[in-house]
Amino acid sequence: MTQIYDRVALIGLGLIAGSMGLAMKRAGCVGEITGYAKTAKTREIADRIGLVDRVCASATEAVQDADLVVLCVPVGAMGDVAAEIGPHLKPGATVTDVGSVKQAVVDAVAPHIPEGVHFIPAHPMAGTEHSGPEAGFAELFDNRWCLLVPQPGTDADAVDRLEDFWHALGANCERMEVEHHDLVCAIVSHIPHIIAYTMVGVADDFHRVSEQEVIKFSAAGFRDFTRIAASDPTMWRDVFLNNKQATLEILGRFTEELFALQRAIRTGDGQTLFDYFNHTREIRRGIIEAGQDTDAPDFGRSKKH
Amino acid sequence: MTQIYDRVALIGLGLIAGSMGLAMKRAGCVGEITGYAKTAKTREIADRIGLVDRVCASATEAVQDADLVVLCVPVGAMGDVAAEIGPHLKPGATVTDVGSVKQAVVDAVAPHIPEGVHFIPAHPMAGTEHSGPEAGFAELFDNRWCLLVPQPGTDADAVDRLEDFWHALGANCERMEVEHHDLVCAIVSHIPHIIAYTMVGVADDFHRVSEQEVIKFSAAGFRDFTRIAASDPTMWRDVFLNNKQATLEILGRFTEELFALQRAIRTGDGQTLFDYFNHTREIRRGIIEAGQDTDAPDFGRSKKH
Ligand SMILES: NC(=O)c1ccc[n+]([C@@H]2O[C@H](COP(=O)([O-])OP(=O)(O)OC[C@H]3O[C@@H](n4cnc5c(N)ncnc54)[C@H](OP(=O)(O)O)[C@@H]3O)[C@@H](O)[C@H]2O)c1
Ligand SMILES: NC(=O)c1ccc[n+]([C@@H]2O[C@H](COP(=O)([O-])OP(=O)(O)OC[C@H]3O[C@@H](n4cnc5c(N)ncnc54)[C@H](OP(=O)(O)O)[C@@H]3O)[C@@H](O)[C@H]2O)c1
Repeated sequence: MTQIYDRVALIGLGLIAGSMGLAMKRAGCVGEITGYAKTAKTREIADRIGLVDRVCASATEAVQDADLVVLCVPVGAMGDVAAEIGPHLKPGATVTDVGSVKQAVVDAVAPHIPEGVHFIPAHPMAGTEHSGPEAGFAELFDNRWCLLVPQPGTDADAVDRLEDFWHALGANCERMEVEHHDLVCAIVSHIPHIIAYTMVGVADDFHRVSEQEVIKFSAAGFRDFTRIAASDPTMWRDVFLNNKQATLEILGRFTEELFALQRAIRTGDGQTLFDYFNHTREIRRGIIEAGQDTDAPDFGRSKKH
Repeated sequence: MTQIYDRVALIGLGLIAGSMGLAMKRAGCVGEITGYAKTAKTREIADRIGLVDRVCASATEAVQDADLVVLCVPVGAMGDVAAEIGPHLKPGATVTDVGSVKQAVVDAVAPHIPEGVHFIPAHPMAGTEHSGPEAGFAELFDNRWCLLVPQPGTDADAVDRLEDFWHALGANCERMEVEHHDLVCAIVSHIPHIIAYTMVGVADDFHRVSEQEVIKFSAAGFRDFTRIAASDPTMWRDVFLNNKQATLEILGRFTEELFALQRAIRTGDGQTLFDYFNHTREIRRGIIEAGQDTDAPDFGRSKKH
């Protein structure tokens, strides 16, 4: 494959950055990859397992001469990192990020990007419940979506190039407006996460059913929630603090619907329950047809045992 | 393997009965297996694919001379089936069921069981979102739990024998009181299902985000809910109508907790969010250690594509 960028700098070396580093190597689509993370421990691990070509001692060192800089830190840390690297960015370079919310990242990062540097926010919609430098794998983005949210007036060639880059990493790309991005993600990701966290919290706190029982019998539905409720607390705290409007709006809708179903249970209204449950099957079918999940019973989990 | 029952009758020939039929054949632990389902269509399919040895034209014919009768119909249909077969049960036989709630089944079934027949309610905690005679597979119960809820005074040998039977089908067994069963299942299964249904319903009804977007980007968390929200509407309507007390109690707790997190989001209380999210990871670890799920990123879903 031809090189898309000569030098790429990854700031943050966790699940997403690590997977990007490995996917770039797999694709052979860039020249040198540099990287930096806050703690010496993470930098050492990244160096040892070869997530990037060169681990740097500072963010400013990592971005030196980079054609693409990717901010792979929690959403709440984006602003500080941008302030630090801003003055050291190469003219003509592109700065992007992988944050799970976008309006807050634009607000925090854009002011620090100098004239002549392209800032193109992005969000690869792929992840696992694991985090840290050892969680990454080259296939993470394969057949997943990366949303690009270029602001009006951004250089079209720079956006196309970033899109080529994400394609090379295995992802499909789609462009979207910032506000719409945050709403879509609230529905497909943020609200499911807060609900899963809540469900797991309730089970844990319900003393008449022991933790051992919850764990043993989890295959009956509960365990589908625990995977996403095991996701990184720092990342998710930042997501909710930074996508307040959309999450609160949809949470309001969620509780409204839940109350309606609760009422149907209380009053014994079987028809309402049946109709509601019947309706939701189609969405599941759509997801399987779109290749975003497998139809195997149990996700093929049982085959692991 | 030695035969545990000479003749087993399955009433209802859907996911659970079909999986039991195939698992019995795999184990070679019974003599003849008879079966009956309400519609001719299901009976024909069951006959064609060999779910049981002999498909009967009526429930009373199926239970004739059976040593074990398993009621594998929706919870709301258990009472009628029991009334129909009651007079035709062989003295000394065991009647059991696989219903997802137990108090309501006991109330509906027990009055129809004659003296000299053992009634031992049970619930295999295994399932998929698929239903019908073609959904079954022999491995469904492997390494899953089957809960037995014998009532006080039930013949101990009959209970032991039913436990042996479930072991032969691949399951682990645990005995539990009826009321506790319904509470445990509300937490690990019923509430997760109603929440998943609600989440999918909200996404479907939220017109500013298209169904296509929801489907495309579902891998970010949402899709984990869709599997259980695709489960059979009849079965789940019956579950909620018949486990009202426990589901309403736990739903109350759930909304209470959700409101607390919602408030933390609104007020920007990052510490509360972080602490809550941090706490839930341990349960996930427990589930993986207990062999009830795999730790593979993405459940190994990506390997299917
Ligand atoms: N995980 C997902 O499912 C997912 C999916 C899509 C997008 N995202 C987004 O991707 C970003 C990273 O997530 P992740 O899952 O890769 O997290 P992660 O595995 O926890 O990694 C975060 C990385 O950021 C580094 N970091 C934190 N603060 C920093 C700072 N001030 N300066 C330099 N490095 C800093 C950390 O370094 P230390 O280890 O040294 O602390 C760590 O290497 C987040 O914005 C998240 O919203 C995540
Ligand atoms: N699916 C799960 O995840 C799961 C897990 C544990 C326990 N359970 C319990 O297992 C039971 C069966 O569930 P399933 O998933 O196997 O459902 P299913 O696949 O929908 O099968 C239900 C079967 O019951 C038959 N049936 C319904 N009413 C009947 C009647 N009056 N007389 C005779 N047969 C009748 C149906 O026959 P027709 O096809 O002819 O209508 C069908 O064969 C339910 O009580 C459920 O609560 C389910």
